[in-house]
Amino acid sequence: MSTTRARSFVSKFPWASTPFIIGAPMRVMSGPNLALAISKSGGLGFIGPGAKPADIHTDLATLRGLVKDAPPSSLPASFASSKSLLPVGIGFQLWDGDVESASQAVKEYRPCAAWLFAPRDGQADLDTWTSRLREASPDTQIWIQIGTVQEALDILQGKTRPDVIVVQGAEAGGHGRVDGLGIITLFPEIADALGDSSGIGLVAAGGIADGRGVAAALALGADGVVLGTRFLASTEARISKGYQQEVVRATDGAKSTTRTMLYNQLRGTTGWPEGYSPRGILNRSWHDHQAGVGFEELKRLYAEATKQGDVGWGPEGRLATYAGASIGLIHSVKDAGKIVSELRTEASDIIRRNYSRL
Amino acid sequence: MSTTRARSFVSKFPWASTPFIIGAPMRVMSGPNLALAISKSGGLGFIGPGAKPADIHTDLATLRGLVKDAPPSSLPASFASSKSLLPVGIGFQLWDGDVESASQAVKEYRPCAAWLFAPRDGQADLDTWTSRLREASPDTQIWIQIGTVQEALDILQGKTRPDVIVVQGAEAGGHGRVDGLGIITLFPEIADALGDSSGIGLVAAGGIADGRGVAAALALGADGVVLGTRFLASTEARISKGYQQEVVRATDGAKSTTRTMLYNQLRGTTGWPEGYSPRGILNRSWHDHQAGVGFEELKRLYAEATKQGDVGWGPEGRLATYAGASIGLIHSVKDAGKIVSELRTEASDIIRRNYSRL
Repeated sequence: MSTTRARSFVSKFPWASTPFIIGAPMRVMSGPNLALAISKSGGLGFIGPGAKPADIHTDLATLRGLVKDAPPSSLPASFASSKSLLPVGIGFQLWDGDVESASQAVKEYRPCAAWLFAPRDGQADLDTWTSRLREASPDTQIWIQIGTVQEALDILQGKTRPDVIVVQGAEAGGHGRVDGLGIITLFPEIADALGDSSGIGLVAAGGIADGRGVAAALALGADGVVLGTRFLASTEARISKGYQQEVVRATDGAKSTTRTMLYNQLRGTTGWPEGYSPRGILNRSWHDHQAGVGFEELKRLYAEATKQGDVGWGPEGRLATYAGASIGLIHSVKDAGKIVSELRTEASDIIRRNYSRL
Repeated sequence: MSTTRARSFVSKFPWASTPFIIGAPMRVMSGPNLALAISKSGGLGFIGPGAKPADIHTDLATLRGLVKDAPPSSLPASFASSKSLLPVGIGFQLWDGDVESASQAVKEYRPCAAWLFAPRDGQADLDTWTSRLREASPDTQIWIQIGTVQEALDILQGKTRPDVIVVQGAEAGGHGRVDGLGIITLFPEIADALGDSSGIGLVAAGGIADGRGVAAALALGADGVVLGTRFLASTEARISKGYQQEVVRATDGAKSTTRTMLYNQLRGTTGWPEGYSPRGILNRSWHDHQAGVGFEELKRLYAEATKQGDVGWGPEGRLATYAGASIGLIHSVKDAGKIVSELRTEASDIIRRNYSRL
């Protein structure tokens, strides 16, 4: 099980409160404003990969500006004490990432953590990226997202060791392992596979959207809890209104979301390594596909829908709406800072309640 | 969220300790010895459906004998205080069950709870069974197992109300909903759908095999926690040695188990209503099937394997090995009473640890 020793990675984020809440690096949608709002509220926000590798420089420059220009009283005092690291992390999608550009950005901006995901060549790629980013900024923590026991065993055999492993369960939104499993089983089995001696921090992701999920992840042994979809419904998310409203509207995660490559194909997203697929909310594209409408026709209708603005999303919409199975637990758009503090309060109340029942 | 009021159903089991551990009614494998051992240790054991409906009478008679003949000092004193109900529950698989025979058994033996599962005709069947069993034994609690939000909504619209709903997540072994979801998301969404006012107790099942899973389920709001696969590896389980050893041996639940109808077809189990499929451990039958071996040949090899005793199970075996995704968390056969008390200790330690970290 995860030990107090492993939790020492959290001490590198002196502004962080308990329970430790982390905002996932969702591609494009997790921008500097969202990431900073999460960190300001005592969590750790990650900026997601941009539409193109160069965007990371823009986003980090923006973030640095936001921190520099903010009235000092509006920021946690401990932001200043973290060895001049930026108080947010940055996410890299390895298979289409550029390690040169990433290293330069990490060297120049020194985010406090770099989250590596979806290598094309498994542990070898993770080793390369880990080494290069550590050269660029030795104090930047390396976080690696996995979704299978085998990936955990591969890390133990690798040339480098991450500071933190993110264990992503099958209920997560966006891309994850096709051969995954729910976090209730996956997290403890990976924790056991790593063993107490690995010294690697372990955080849980996937299907968590409120204080109940946070408290459950902590019970499984997580040192911190990652939320993605919940932050799609935050004021600061870099997301279209129609997309965001659909995350708020949709219920019944088992019925209204699934893992499918259909939307990747319709929007022309190609090149993902084998073994990954995205979860998203089902809409007209899916239902027509199930009803036998041909791919070319679906693609034409998809292209039309991209021109329709916010009505492109929703049950009668056609656009990709990547989101996790937790959508049924999300009922309104809130400021990210409020989401973080409510998650902590809810989870803490649950822990106190269950303690009082012993 | 689940309230203290809903937890009042637990008070009907005066021998029960906190956290409340429940042994699932696994078909044939959960016999009287296993169920009684779980209840004796402060949990609630369920006897599973037998190979044929009449077996339930035999099993309940055996159970009654075990309780009657045991030295009083070997049983919890509070067994006697539960209105002369038997201190175990009984499980009914509705689609091939016989409500007449079931009512007679419940009337004669008065188990403290009856667990209803897999109706052919949805809520209508559940209403019929609930009414009939309540007529037969008004103090016997009615527990209903579901795996989707829709089933919870159907219960709210039904003519009868169960005392307890068992929310089964997709990681569970044996038969469950094909359209299910991991418990991390499914449980809170169903709890919200039912609302605080339903007065129905809520327990969690699926993918839980140790104290971490128990503590996580309690954090999600469960009033009790159901384990099945963990008890397959108990001394008292009515299971072949080869099957049991495979549950202990297998690891990596995502890779070594799946939901498939193949084993039902090979062993000639037909008639399950649509919407259900079983999870089991993969073996030669599956891998040959994937490699293109024809069904008739697979069936012939399966029939041969049934004559080979314990070597019919295992990675090179061919027999159905229904089990949950939690198999990687199970490493030895133990007495059921020890399993129950260890689960409570582990979960309590986790709750105390997380409380101390607040």
